[in-house]
Amino acid sequence: MHSIDPRTAQPFGASWPDTTADELDAICAAAAKAATSMRRKTTRERADMLEHMAAALEERRSDLVALADAETALGEPRLNGELTRTAFQLRFLAEAILSGDHHRATISPPTDSPMGPLPDLRRSVVPLGPIAVFAASNFPFAFSVPGGDTAAAIAAGCPVVVKVHPSHPALSAAVASALTDALDRAGAPAGTFAAVSGVETGARLVQHRAIAAVAFTGSLQGGRALFDLACARPDPIPFYGELGSLNPVVVTPAAARARGAGIGADWVASVTLGGGQFCTKPGLLLVPADGAAPVIEAIGTAVGSSPAAVLLNEPTHRRFGSGVERLTEHTTLVASSAADASTGFSASPVVVRTTVAAALQAPGVLDEIFGPVGIVLEYATLAEVDELLDHLGGTLTATIQGEDRDPDAPALVELAAGVAGRVIWNGYPTGVAVSPSMQHGGPWPASTAPRDTSVGTASIERFVRPVSYQNLPEPLLPPELRTP
Amino acid sequence: MHSIDPRTAQPFGASWPDTTADELDAICAAAAKAATSMRRKTTRERADMLEHMAAALEERRSDLVALADAETALGEPRLNGELTRTAFQLRFLAEAILSGDHHRATISPPTDSPMGPLPDLRRSVVPLGPIAVFAASNFPFAFSVPGGDTAAAIAAGCPVVVKVHPSHPALSAAVASALTDALDRAGAPAGTFAAVSGVETGARLVQHRAIAAVAFTGSLQGGRALFDLACARPDPIPFYGELGSLNPVVVTPAAARARGAGIGADWVASVTLGGGQFCTKPGLLLVPADGAAPVIEAIGTAVGSSPAAVLLNEPTHRRFGSGVERLTEHTTLVASSAADASTGFSASPVVVRTTVAAALQAPGVLDEIFGPVGIVLEYATLAEVDELLDHLGGTLTATIQGEDRDPDAPALVELAAGVAGRVIWNGYPTGVAVSPSMQHGGPWPASTAPRDTSVGTASIERFVRPVSYQNLPEPLLPPELRTP
Repeated sequence: MHSIDPRTAQPFGASWPDTTADELDAICAAAAKAATSMRRKTTRERADMLEHMAAALEERRSDLVALADAETALGEPRLNGELTRTAFQLRFLAEAILSGDHHRATISPPTDSPMGPLPDLRRSVVPLGPIAVFAASNFPFAFSVPGGDTAAAIAAGCPVVVKVHPSHPALSAAVASALTDALDRAGAPAGTFAAVSGVETGARLVQHRAIAAVAFTGSLQGGRALFDLACARPDPIPFYGELGSLNPVVVTPAAARARGAGIGADWVASVTLGGGQFCTKPGLLLVPADGAAPVIEAIGTAVGSSPAAVLLNEPTHRRFGSGVERLTEHTTLVASSAADASTGFSASPVVVRTTVAAALQAPGVLDEIFGPVGIVLEYATLAEVDELLDHLGGTLTATIQGEDRDPDAPALVELAAGVAGRVIWNGYPTGVAVSPSMQHGGPWPASTAPRDTSVGTASIERFVRPVSYQNLPEPLLPPELRTP
Repeated sequence: MHSIDPRTAQPFGASWPDTTADELDAICAAAAKAATSMRRKTTRERADMLEHMAAALEERRSDLVALADAETALGEPRLNGELTRTAFQLRFLAEAILSGDHHRATISPPTDSPMGPLPDLRRSVVPLGPIAVFAASNFPFAFSVPGGDTAAAIAAGCPVVVKVHPSHPALSAAVASALTDALDRAGAPAGTFAAVSGVETGARLVQHRAIAAVAFTGSLQGGRALFDLACARPDPIPFYGELGSLNPVVVTPAAARARGAGIGADWVASVTLGGGQFCTKPGLLLVPADGAAPVIEAIGTAVGSSPAAVLLNEPTHRRFGSGVERLTEHTTLVASSAADASTGFSASPVVVRTTVAAALQAPGVLDEIFGPVGIVLEYATLAEVDELLDHLGGTLTATIQGEDRDPDAPALVELAAGVAGRVIWNGYPTGVAVSPSMQHGGPWPASTAPRDTSVGTASIERFVRPVSYQNLPEPLLPPELRTP
C-alpha cells in the first residue's frame, strides 16, 4: 500500500504493509481484554476519552490536513472543515452520553396484572464488545479512522479496530497514532483502539471471534461482501453498512414552473460538490416532462462551466469513466464540462437525461456512479415517480422541491418517507448534520440496517444492547437504574 | 398436516393442506397493498385493531382453549392463563402506541455549529412494511398466531403474514379466522393479516419481495436456516429470531450454605414447569463443588417424585429421548422420575450432573434439550463460571441465587449481564413479564438480533424505522413532529 497523489496519479512516501494474521489476532485479543475494562468505565471517563481524541486531532490540525490533502486532493478548506466536524462529533457524543439518555433506562416497579404479580424490572444497556470499523475513502476524517463510527463505539463503551482505507494510508497511520496516544492519556485500557490494513485482513476481522459488530461505510459491492461474511459466521453479528444511494430530488410541476432554472443550477452545484463523491450526492433529478425545458437549459449552462474535479483514487476514476460510458449508451447527453481533465484522476462533470419509463427499462442506468455525474429523469405522472422510488427500494435521502401549498407535496412526502432515511424540503442532501434528529441510513440498498443511523446521537445505539434486571437489590444495579 | 393428540400420539380431525406458491404470492401482494393503507392509519385506529383482536380471543375462549389442549396437551388452566396473557399483551401494546412513545420523536430546531448553520431536523418512525411471523409450538397463543410478534407488528402499523406451527393447525386456523374477522370489524385494510402453512411456504415467505422483516421463535437449527435465507436475499431484511437458551442459574457459595436444599427443589419445579418446554427453562444449575451435596440431594428427591410430562409433538419427544441418551453418556445421573411415561409423547423428568471443566470438554453436553431435563454443573472457582458463560456466548436469562451482601454477587451480576438479556436475582426465569422494562433476547445463540426484544413495549421497535424530516413546512410533517 502506497500513498498516491490524485492530482498526478504518482505514488509517494513510505510503503505500508498489510497487517498479518498473527498481528490481527493479537490486536483482537487486546480489544477483547479492553472490552471488559471499558464496561467498567463511567460515562464521565468515556466522555474524557472522546474529548482527548478531539483535542488530539486539533493539536495536529495543520500536519493532518496537509497529509489528507496530499492523499485525497480534496483541498485544504474542505479538509479543515471536515476536521472541525470530526472533532465536533467526538465532543457531541461525549455530551450525549453525559446526559445519560443513551441508557434509555426504564424502571417498572412490581405490579399486579391479570396473570398475577409482576416482578421489579429495570432495563438499561451494556456495550456490545469490540467493534470493527471500515473507513471510507471520501471523508478521510469524518467517516474514516477518527470518524463517526469510532466516536459512537467509544461513546458506547466498546473498543475499536479500524480497517483503514487504502487511499489514505499515511493520514490513517498519523491519526491512529494520535488517537492511541490520546486514549492512553485519557486512561483508556490498552487495546481500546487499533488500526489494521489489507483486504484479507478486513475479511478476517469481520470473522474474528472477538468482534461483536461491524460498522462499514463504502460501496454496495464491498459492503455486501463483508455483510455476507458477518451473516455466515458460526455466531452471526450485527453489520451496520452504509452503502450507496441515488438520493432522488423530485421537482413538482409547480416548482418547475416557478423556479425551474434556479433548481437546475443549484442541483448541478450539489452534484459536483466535493467532486460528486458524497454518499448523499443527489444523483437523480426528477422533473415533470412538460416543464422540463427551463430546468434542463439551466443545467446545461451550469455543467458547461463547472470545473473539473480530481477524484480520490484510481478505482473511483476508472469506474467513473466506465459508468459514464455505460450511461451515455442509454440516455441523452445534456452537457459535459469543457474543463480539462487530462491530469491525474481528473474528471469532467457530466449530466444526461432520459425518461422515468426508459430508465426503468434500462438496467444499469440506475446504478450509483461516484463522481460528478447526474441524471435528469422526466416523469409524466406522480404514479411514475412512485414506481421509480419503489424500484430504488431504499435511499439515504429523498428531496422535494415544491411550492407553498403545493398540491403534490403531501403525496410526495409520503412516497419519500417510504424509501428514504431523510426527507428534505427545498434544499439539497449533501450536508449531513450531526444532530439528535439525524437519520443517516435507509432501507436496502442504502444500508444493511434500515433501523440505524451512522450520524447523530442515535448512532451510539448500534453498539449497545439492552439488559433487564429482575428483582435486583439496589446496590447491585447499575447507577442509572437505582431508585432516584 | 394433521392435528395429533400428544396424549395418545393419534391423529384426529381434518387435514390441513400447505399453502401453494400462487396462494402465497396473492397473500403477499395483498399485504403489500395493505401496508400503504396501514401507514395512513392513526395510532388510535391501530389501537382499535389490537383491542378488537383481544376481544375476539376472549369471546371464543372456551372453544379455543379446548382446541389448544387437544393439540398441545398443555392443560386448560395453563392455556386459559396463556390466552389471558395474549389478550393482555394486545391491549398493552395498544396502550403503548396511544402514549406515542414508540415514535421516539425528536425536534431539533435550526442552530449554529462550528461548521455553520444546521437545518431544522425532526425525527420519527414509519412502519417497515409486511412482516413474516413464524409461530412457535410451545405457546400456542402467546408466541403463535395471535402472539407478541403479531401484536407488535400491528402496533407498528405493519401487515402480518403468519407461518403457522404444524403442531397446532386446527387452533391456528380458528385463531386466524377470529383475528381476520376482528381486524375487518376494526376497519383494517384487506390483506392486513393472513396465515400460511408448510415448510417450503415458510422458506418462500422469508424470500418474498413484499416481506420487509421476519420475526421467528423456535429452534436454533430452524432459525438459523431461515436467518440465512433472509441474509442471502438480493435485498437482505432484518431477521428477529429468538432461538434457544440454556438460562444458567448460578448459586453462590453463601446461598448454597444458607439454603441449598430449597434452591435444589425450586430449581426442579422451574425445570419441569410446562413439561420443561419454555425457552426460559433454567437448564443449567451451577453450584459450588464444596457445597453441592445438599443441593443435589434435594434435587434427587424432587425429581424422583415429579410427574411425567406430555410433550408437544413427535419431534420434541424424539429429540428429548436422544438428547437425554447423549447427555447420560457424558454425565452422572442424579435422578429420574419414577412416573410412567409410556403413553403418547410422555417423558420422565431427569437431572444429571458433571463439573464445569468436564462439560467444557464434552461437546453436546451444552446443547439445549427441550423437555424436563436439567444439568447440575459443579464449579471450583468463579473463573470457571466466567469461562462457562463465555462459552455459552449468549443466553436469554442468567440467574443468581445469592445472599444479602453476598461477596460474590457484584462480579456475578457483571458476568451475567455480559451474556444475558435478563439478569434475575433469587428467582427463576420461566415467567416473562409483559412490561416496559422487559428484554427477552440476548446475544447469539439466544437471538439473531441482540439489540431487540420479542416481549414488552420495545418489541414494537423491531418493525419501524426512523425517518428525519429536514426543513419541512409544519403541515407536511407527521402529527407527532409538529411544533407543540
